[in-house]
Amino acid sequence: MPIPLADLAQRVGAQLQGDGSVPIARVATLEAAGPDAIAFLTNPRYRGKLQSTRAGAVIVSPASANDTALPKLVSANPYAVYAKVAILLHPREAAPAGVHPSAVIGQGARIASSASIAALCVIGEGAVIGERVTIGPACAIGAGAAIGEDSLLHANVTIYHQCTLGRRAIVHSGAVIGADGFGMAEENGRWIKIPQTGRVVIGDDVEIGANTTIDRGAIEDTVVEDDVKLDNQIQIGHNCRIGAHTAIAGCAGIAGSTRIGRNCKIGGAALIGGHLTIADDVTISGATQVFDSIDVPGMYTGVIAPLPHREWRRWASALRRLTTFEGRLRALEGTARKEQPDTRPDGEP
Amino acid sequence: MPIPLADLAQRVGAQLQGDGSVPIARVATLEAAGPDAIAFLTNPRYRGKLQSTRAGAVIVSPASANDTALPKLVSANPYAVYAKVAILLHPREAAPAGVHPSAVIGQGARIASSASIAALCVIGEGAVIGERVTIGPACAIGAGAAIGEDSLLHANVTIYHQCTLGRRAIVHSGAVIGADGFGMAEENGRWIKIPQTGRVVIGDDVEIGANTTIDRGAIEDTVVEDDVKLDNQIQIGHNCRIGAHTAIAGCAGIAGSTRIGRNCKIGGAALIGGHLTIADDVTISGATQVFDSIDVPGMYTGVIAPLPHREWRRWASALRRLTTFEGRLRALEGTARKEQPDTRPDGEP
Amino acid sequence: MPIPLADLAQRVGAQLQGDGSVPIARVATLEAAGPDAIAFLTNPRYRGKLQSTRAGAVIVSPASANDTALPKLVSANPYAVYAKVAILLHPREAAPAGVHPSAVIGQGARIASSASIAALCVIGEGAVIGERVTIGPACAIGAGAAIGEDSLLHANVTIYHQCTLGRRAIVHSGAVIGADGFGMAEENGRWIKIPQTGRVVIGDDVEIGANTTIDRGAIEDTVVEDDVKLDNQIQIGHNCRIGAHTAIAGCAGIAGSTRIGRNCKIGGAALIGGHLTIADDVTISGATQVFDSIDVPGMYTGVIAPLPHREWRRWASALRRLTTFEGRLRALEGTARKEQPDTRPDGEP
Repeated sequence: MPIPLADLAQRVGAQLQGDGSVPIARVATLEAAGPDAIAFLTNPRYRGKLQSTRAGAVIVSPASANDTALPKLVSANPYAVYAKVAILLHPREAAPAGVHPSAVIGQGARIASSASIAALCVIGEGAVIGERVTIGPACAIGAGAAIGEDSLLHANVTIYHQCTLGRRAIVHSGAVIGADGFGMAEENGRWIKIPQTGRVVIGDDVEIGANTTIDRGAIEDTVVEDDVKLDNQIQIGHNCRIGAHTAIAGCAGIAGSTRIGRNCKIGGAALIGGHLTIADDVTISGATQVFDSIDVPGMYTGVIAPLPHREWRRWASALRRLTTFEGRLRALEGTARKEQPDTRPDGEP
Repeated sequence: MPIPLADLAQRVGAQLQGDGSVPIARVATLEAAGPDAIAFLTNPRYRGKLQSTRAGAVIVSPASANDTALPKLVSANPYAVYAKVAILLHPREAAPAGVHPSAVIGQGARIASSASIAALCVIGEGAVIGERVTIGPACAIGAGAAIGEDSLLHANVTIYHQCTLGRRAIVHSGAVIGADGFGMAEENGRWIKIPQTGRVVIGDDVEIGANTTIDRGAIEDTVVEDDVKLDNQIQIGHNCRIGAHTAIAGCAGIAGSTRIGRNCKIGGAALIGGHLTIADDVTISGATQVFDSIDVPGMYTGVIAPLPHREWRRWASALRRLTTFEGRLRALEGTARKEQPDTRPDGEP
Repeated sequence: MPIPLADLAQRVGAQLQGDGSVPIARVATLEAAGPDAIAFLTNPRYRGKLQSTRAGAVIVSPASANDTALPKLVSANPYAVYAKVAILLHPREAAPAGVHPSAVIGQGARIASSASIAALCVIGEGAVIGERVTIGPACAIGAGAAIGEDSLLHANVTIYHQCTLGRRAIVHSGAVIGADGFGMAEENGRWIKIPQTGRVVIGDDVEIGANTTIDRGAIEDTVVEDDVKLDNQIQIGHNCRIGAHTAIAGCAGIAGSTRIGRNCKIGGAALIGGHLTIADDVTISGATQVFDSIDVPGMYTGVIAPLPHREWRRWASALRRLTTFEGRLRALEGTARKEQPDTRPDGEP
């Protein structure tokens, strides 16, 4: 049901400008919004769309507030205001409390009475499911695992034995928490599996995307701290520790025993090697490959822009000869030096 | 049961040369084929194998037709003829119509009487399952989702609420359609989740590989147009649009809000950044990373060939000094200029 | 229950030094170990921790044996000894034999009486489940598939029809074995699916990580030989053959029809293109992209180190001008040649 704009302003802590009685039923884009919708502008590049939108209200920064006569919420962080408004207008539907009769519950499992266990779930022996937890269809929760209050697992999630999730977790379908880390010893050309005796321990307010995998520790635990956000298809190796508030985009891989700091941002398909330490407040660009620890906060990038294929062939050929360039430069510099004083602008030998 | 070669020729629209009465029971490789099998040659490099094959018949291009005396189907597109022949000889087994008693069907779900719902599926409330649809074991179909006629979902597929698949879809195990997009706003170093209120809308004749994930839109829908073919372990972010007839190979990632054109070919493990537009008829080579929109059709590549590790170390070291090379070149050119007229072959400063 | 150190020494084939009566209950890290635990040292860099550990015993190489007075197991391969000790101290819990009443068993399936089939599994028609096999909850085993003796499938594994696993396999949740390979022919801008009529055939002692996918062959089989170890989120295309004892780290992709030799090591997120042959004993570094066959054993690398973003921009700009560098070098060398005898250290033109 619609909420008057003034109520929204108050509940999300934004400044109201204009008619606060406008009823708002949904969020929408500036282009698609109708009079019952609120839209938002965060990128000044799209300021022109403020003129043409049919939205009933908009969310803008102070700098854009004068660009529209529409009723509006004004905030220095319009994207956060949009997020809060969207949560109010599009609340998650609560699943009915109780255990579906087709679910299979192991001995000694403790399921809070307010929890909702959907059809065809398997809850392992001694697992603990907290208050108001929702577990979607066909999830498999291992023996002794624990799911914190108010968490939501979508369909087909797998949690291995003894792993624990904190409160308010959201786990998407296909995610696998607690599979064995990739540990084995080589002996005479054959592999000996190393039992993975640690767990995965996940803090509060963590979201885990579809088909993401987090391996259990070899001896000690793999740890994901509070408010970490993981997109889809991420792989986190055994014994990693992901610091609080860090966000990792889709398809990234973190090899075993690496520690990622707090408030980091790891781009999509980035790869971070094993046994590294990444400082707090580090941003790794998408597709960047990190094989050394990073001590200094900041943004790091290591990608190659594509070229039309024919140009790339010529470029790649030059790239392979790169080490010869250096020798040729030195030879030329030797020649030049005999003729001229050294004019090189840098300290290279 | 075997089909006479002449019948195959007629049904797939290829030209018959030689004895049309040969009964063909299966497709096989040139090396492994016996007299009941048909093999094919598309790469002229393997022309020699035409001489030694024990196949009962072959599929060849006009250019290779004279290289063998075997009965044959001749076509300018022998690979397409092979595909059609294989479909005739190896038809998909129809699953028995009906709902397995162990499946759990939500209230108001409409399941066509010719559809087949396997054991331990969960069909959400109000979902619509079309005629002749086959849903494999342990799939979870969300509330209000719709699966078009003649579609096939293998085991353990997850379709979130409200998402729709067109006709003749094939979805492989572990695929997740409609999980939340990775959207959140930052406020005071913490994340606020943005409800993902859009859907995934998938056209006709789309194939989706194992463990591929397609996220639902934040506000509007994520769209996959007709005849798109997606391999395994692909990630498609929220609000993407994938144009008709585009094929994407395994492990590729498409970040949010990107539009891929029609008839594109995206190589394996390619990464395409967010908010980009890729024109129709663009080919992206495997492992290539795209962070800018592409307006001009053609093939784009951006990979680095590996080297023996010791050579790579020397090469990588030179690569890190690349910016110094430029300064040194300029210095040398400054020296040379004083001696000689400019002989540089290009317009670089 | 604890095992005396002397017994461990005998059972794993390591040399005992010191008090063999110490009871050992668990493995632990040097830092965290208490007196009931055994720890290990493989990296001489951590030798200092030997002094401070509270472990009851340690596993060391002969070179480190004199660095500690603790009771110890000494071996030239301490990591392998650690693996064997960990297996003894942390044995896998045997699941109870029998078929859970909620599992759905297809007609003609043969399930060994010592096998354990967990809740909500679906076993297809004619599938064969060997002695002492454990199948976790919610797995889907296709018609005619075969699982060898002593194998363990964790929850939510999918095995397609006709695929076979050897003995002592371990398959983690979300793995999909036998989905269709990505094969299609193009005709008039549309795709025609090529039926994938081969199988996946997996040898003995293979481990397959969470959400890893291995596609069935187009005509012949995809083959994974004995003692291959696959981490999570790996994609193996149709008709690949992975040689015995090869290990592949997480997120790697192997495109179709490629043959990987024996005893290879493929790093995380490495990509190996299609139709290639990789020799035995090849190591591919993480994130390296291989598009040509490799005939010579050894380690191959092809990655780019990241830079602080601002530096990267300057570097990437120079990289794009790389082909111009070559022309400029040639021009300078032409100038120099007129002045001086050729001093170039290499054979470049």
